[in-house]
Amino acid sequence: MTTTSPKGFRAAGVAAGLKASGGLDVAVVLNDGPRYDAAGVFTSNRVQAAPVLWSREVVRHGQVRAVVLNSGGANACTGAAGFQDTHATAEHTAAALGVGAAEVAVCSTGLIGERLPMPALLTGVTEALEKAETDGGASAAEAIMTTDSRPKNVAIAANGFTVGGMAKGAGMLAPGLATMLVVLTTDAVADASTVDTVLREACRLTFDRLDSDGCMSTNDTVLLLANGASGVAPSTKELAAAVTAACEDLAAQLQSDAEGSTKDIAIAVTNAATEADAVEVGRAVARSNLVKTAFFGNDPNWGRILSAIGTTRAAFDPDGIDVAINGVPICVGGAAGADRSTVDLSGRAVDVTIDLHAGDAAATIRTNDLSLAYVHENSAYST
Amino acid sequence: MTTTSPKGFRAAGVAAGLKASGGLDVAVVLNDGPRYDAAGVFTSNRVQAAPVLWSREVVRHGQVRAVVLNSGGANACTGAAGFQDTHATAEHTAAALGVGAAEVAVCSTGLIGERLPMPALLTGVTEALEKAETDGGASAAEAIMTTDSRPKNVAIAANGFTVGGMAKGAGMLAPGLATMLVVLTTDAVADASTVDTVLREACRLTFDRLDSDGCMSTNDTVLLLANGASGVAPSTKELAAAVTAACEDLAAQLQSDAEGSTKDIAIAVTNAATEADAVEVGRAVARSNLVKTAFFGNDPNWGRILSAIGTTRAAFDPDGIDVAINGVPICVGGAAGADRSTVDLSGRAVDVTIDLHAGDAAATIRTNDLSLAYVHENSAYST
Repeated sequence: MTTTSPKGFRAAGVAAGLKASGGLDVAVVLNDGPRYDAAGVFTSNRVQAAPVLWSREVVRHGQVRAVVLNSGGANACTGAAGFQDTHATAEHTAAALGVGAAEVAVCSTGLIGERLPMPALLTGVTEALEKAETDGGASAAEAIMTTDSRPKNVAIAANGFTVGGMAKGAGMLAPGLATMLVVLTTDAVADASTVDTVLREACRLTFDRLDSDGCMSTNDTVLLLANGASGVAPSTKELAAAVTAACEDLAAQLQSDAEGSTKDIAIAVTNAATEADAVEVGRAVARSNLVKTAFFGNDPNWGRILSAIGTTRAAFDPDGIDVAINGVPICVGGAAGADRSTVDLSGRAVDVTIDLHAGDAAATIRTNDLSLAYVHENSAYST
Repeated sequence: MTTTSPKGFRAAGVAAGLKASGGLDVAVVLNDGPRYDAAGVFTSNRVQAAPVLWSREVVRHGQVRAVVLNSGGANACTGAAGFQDTHATAEHTAAALGVGAAEVAVCSTGLIGERLPMPALLTGVTEALEKAETDGGASAAEAIMTTDSRPKNVAIAANGFTVGGMAKGAGMLAPGLATMLVVLTTDAVADASTVDTVLREACRLTFDRLDSDGCMSTNDTVLLLANGASGVAPSTKELAAAVTAACEDLAAQLQSDAEGSTKDIAIAVTNAATEADAVEVGRAVARSNLVKTAFFGNDPNWGRILSAIGTTRAAFDPDGIDVAINGVPICVGGAAGADRSTVDLSGRAVDVTIDLHAGDAAATIRTNDLSLAYVHENSAYST
């Protein structure tokens, strides 16, 4: 159930001293072939970490032999020196593996604005490369955790091939993408162009619709490595289904582990004029601090939902919006519906359905509540 | 120092039983002329409360004799019945004053989605009209408070004329406009078109640049009533300066009373390519929950500021951004500058300066931190 579930991948996580806690903080995922097709999707933030700038170039060639990841530092806003650190990490890994540095992707996560302790990192990489095993996915997933309370792994068994994956992310979760690192692996046979198509579609429908706190990261990276070791060449549709299922599973794990959260909120926008409208409305509601604090307080405050919908450009008639919370039609035609006391918000899962009555498109955005623990945790992060 | 500081205005606030606390909850501001020129600026939220829909039509004619305001209920998302309630309030007031209902603006604030208790409200309006006095501004300002901890009043003495005003607002503070009601009065002589021009410019530079929690209200209303009682006809520029000064003062009062806030944060964006770029960047930073929680924790986490800047479309080179916090150049050229321990964040005022090095435009956005008290207060609002 990890990145090493598909055939032909090895991984490891080691403690290199980057984290003050002494926990695992450097990971590698190695592709043993026979194919090395790969693709990546990166943050749309214009302030991009050095490893994002580097790995974007790597996947441009469509071939990845190894991924090196570290927690304990984002290597973002570190200037030319920070970029050289990433480059040196790739060179170091490539030399050990006897491959080209341009086939080594690098991912970092942690505090923005500080240089990485390079000697410790490179020593850790050497150790991780030595330890990499075909059942090493679990330790790799542990090594990329920051404020995550648990590692996040997945494996989807498909028709003759497997998709595995790991993710880290617990805050700065917002589209384009969430603050997260994800490495997906598959032993399916697929060329780099197909891998790219499949990964983009999967991200669009899963990670891009997770918006925990509206904050976009400088380091987001999702990589998919396909080595063909199963000998099975699925159709694009079949591969896309398995990869999307893996991403959906990891996205749900990210959501349920979001910093300080007490609710997993799914905002389903239905009968929108366009899918873009549905996404815009869902995202506006997901980003309203007043909506999020209300849910933290178990308060089905639908007025705040309508207020958030009203900030969008989506097609709707304000007097024609229905909102249901956990199945209770609390707002009908833009005004009060069922009594708010009939909504049960005691559980962690909250389902909000917004019917815009403006068409037949739909989308679901996933978010969390805004809790006292979120504020507490994020007001003391770098200190 | 209130709405009744300019000549020719009367006001009052009374307790009509709309607030559970028994406090003042209905206010009137009456214009005794000789002129009745007026203008209004309203929320850009597409979900608009009944009193906004009504008052927007009233000011379209440029003549306002009276403003009726209530706390204890927003009369938003209340459908056709809610609009009739607003209409009835205006009719009731107009009948008592012997004027047309189309000259009576109405403002409401409080919980969204519930009907107002009309008998109590109309009884309160009658009482407020009877009590309205030339020194009644203070009680009117008190009657429009919701979660405000104190009333907000202002008076600016200009060259032969005066601008007075009152505001309420403590949450849902975001552009277009803040969640607030503002009534400004002046005894200057100015036609309705000039009043409109002056008010829009003042709002653009003050209330529209206050973004406490990124949440936009359904009820925002800013009204300016000019009665010419001073006999002085200032130039448009002179009147604009006084009105903007009054708005600036009220905006600062709104910011300093924002729900649960412990910091007043001014984000000055300098050397932007355009003023729109400066506003976009300032607003993105002001809306980042991670920036806001960091300031609550007295943490000068400039990486989160850069991460927020990176989400905008403004012109800048990521490696060319400087950020100073309370005068300390903590980020230089997109990377670490002065040591973060040298930034003193112990006070309430925080000055963030972002130099984009992309032009010569500038704008300042004002916001607050995101505190435990904000979450606490907003998770228990309607219950």
